[in-house]
Amino acid sequence: MSSVAVHCLPSGAADARRLAARLGLPVQGITIHQFPDGEIKVTVSDAAPTSIIYASLDRPNDKLIALLFAAEALRRGGAKRLVLLAPYLCYMRQDAAFHPGEAISQQAIGRLLTATFDRVITVDAHLHRTSDIRMVFPGIEADNLSAMPAIADALAGIDPATVVAGPDEESRPWVSALAALLGLGHVVGRKTRRGDRSVEIDFAGQIAMAGRPILLVDDIVSSGGTLMTCAQTLRAAGAVTIDAVITHALFPPDMIEEFARAGIRSIRSTSSVAHPTNAIPLDRVLADALQGELA
Amino acid sequence: MSSVAVHCLPSGAADARRLAARLGLPVQGITIHQFPDGEIKVTVSDAAPTSIIYASLDRPNDKLIALLFAAEALRRGGAKRLVLLAPYLCYMRQDAAFHPGEAISQQAIGRLLTATFDRVITVDAHLHRTSDIRMVFPGIEADNLSAMPAIADALAGIDPATVVAGPDEESRPWVSALAALLGLGHVVGRKTRRGDRSVEIDFAGQIAMAGRPILLVDDIVSSGGTLMTCAQTLRAAGAVTIDAVITHALFPPDMIEEFARAGIRSIRSTSSVAHPTNAIPLDRVLADALQGELA
Repeated sequence: MSSVAVHCLPSGAADARRLAARLGLPVQGITIHQFPDGEIKVTVSDAAPTSIIYASLDRPNDKLIALLFAAEALRRGGAKRLVLLAPYLCYMRQDAAFHPGEAISQQAIGRLLTATFDRVITVDAHLHRTSDIRMVFPGIEADNLSAMPAIADALAGIDPATVVAGPDEESRPWVSALAALLGLGHVVGRKTRRGDRSVEIDFAGQIAMAGRPILLVDDIVSSGGTLMTCAQTLRAAGAVTIDAVITHALFPPDMIEEFARAGIRSIRSTSSVAHPTNAIPLDRVLADALQGELA
Repeated sequence: MSSVAVHCLPSGAADARRLAARLGLPVQGITIHQFPDGEIKVTVSDAAPTSIIYASLDRPNDKLIALLFAAEALRRGGAKRLVLLAPYLCYMRQDAAFHPGEAISQQAIGRLLTATFDRVITVDAHLHRTSDIRMVFPGIEADNLSAMPAIADALAGIDPATVVAGPDEESRPWVSALAALLGLGHVVGRKTRRGDRSVEIDFAGQIAMAGRPILLVDDIVSSGGTLMTCAQTLRAAGAVTIDAVITHALFPPDMIEEFARAGIRSIRSTSSVAHPTNAIPLDRVLADALQGELA
């Protein structure tokens, strides 16, 4: 038996298999049986001393419970070290109580995963007030990888007149990183949120955008409102084309047409969350982060 | 502000309000906002030093995540003691690995709730190999209440020729308790399970059932297979009528007609899980268990 194995939830099987093959590791499916009453039964196979669970946590609630069960079975089966590889890590956005009585979901999920795993690896976690992901997972190892090198690879040869644009201050780290990797100028908007689906964004007084192609970048697209508003503002500022690249595509696939009507010529996402817009594999980024587990 | 308050998930609001009124406690709704991408936001109001969360855990996965978030917000809001009142407690049935690699869900859920609450109260938890519910929740207080006194109250005046029947050895504790409370004879079957929906049950060589009314008792009815098979066997043994009483009704409501066709004249459940068969309130049983919190 290998001393390291990759286990995957059903939803991430194809990505996990590709990653395991790249690392030369065996891959084992975690099976989830759904009972008619809504409870689930989880079965794992062959726990390795180091067991890596590949589980991207979009639509997370059922998956979180399945993860708890899988971890229980793997520990009992002999795993000494459990690594959660969650390219999309849920609930990082609620990092404060914005209104009285609101749960800080980030804290609760942080505690849950800290109690379950020895290491958590994710990509472009939406950390705003929390500057370091290790604050979310005190006492265990935690890595917040950047998808920007993978995105830059996919965009090699881009028009050098392109401006990289992000919707708000929160996007500045990945916007500036991607712009630097591609040797392009960049700009971030000032965003005012007015509910789940309504935002205003202002790019005024920054870099000139008239007559230039725009590469719109964001970490998560969920309701789509931010991206739509950005596109409208950028068109009004004279952008000739708008292409979007995002790390985590959480929006319903039929929204792609709405993006097109808003003037977004193309939208590409990383393989983090399975989605019709997937075009940028994270394999190398994830494989590099796992090298230390193979020693 | 009261030193004790009841907080309830939306699904149990009516039962929680009735219970809180009986105890003279304030009741606060826990609100759950569902985002389009499947994540939730939980908001609580006014944490009391002792905060009791009423949450029956049928269809449990989303509710378990909501509970974690509510507990986080209540603790941060000042709750010193968190009591989970879960009339139906999920995942108690998977108390062993029946096949290699199966997660022991009972253990995983036990650890999760132990880390979150100071006390867990439930009713007729399906404990088979685990003899005492405190083994599921090591280090915190845990109570497994019996619904049988509430059921016996509801059945006062029953025909004394009635035989109380349970499907299997696991049902013996509540079958014998209910029979004793009602002063009736009882019998339990020998059950062989052949998958989620297929079981065989044999009552041979026990108490005579020909010409007598039968009161069929079980803790949980989920797929309905066990109850259906019991009814067929009991009719074949000459039962004149079959009425069923159960603690937790987890089966789809349209199955009531199938039970009728299988010869079950009536089926009544406790208020544990909201269901069209609800006929037996648990208010007194639950209120009695909470008396100690009011001191």
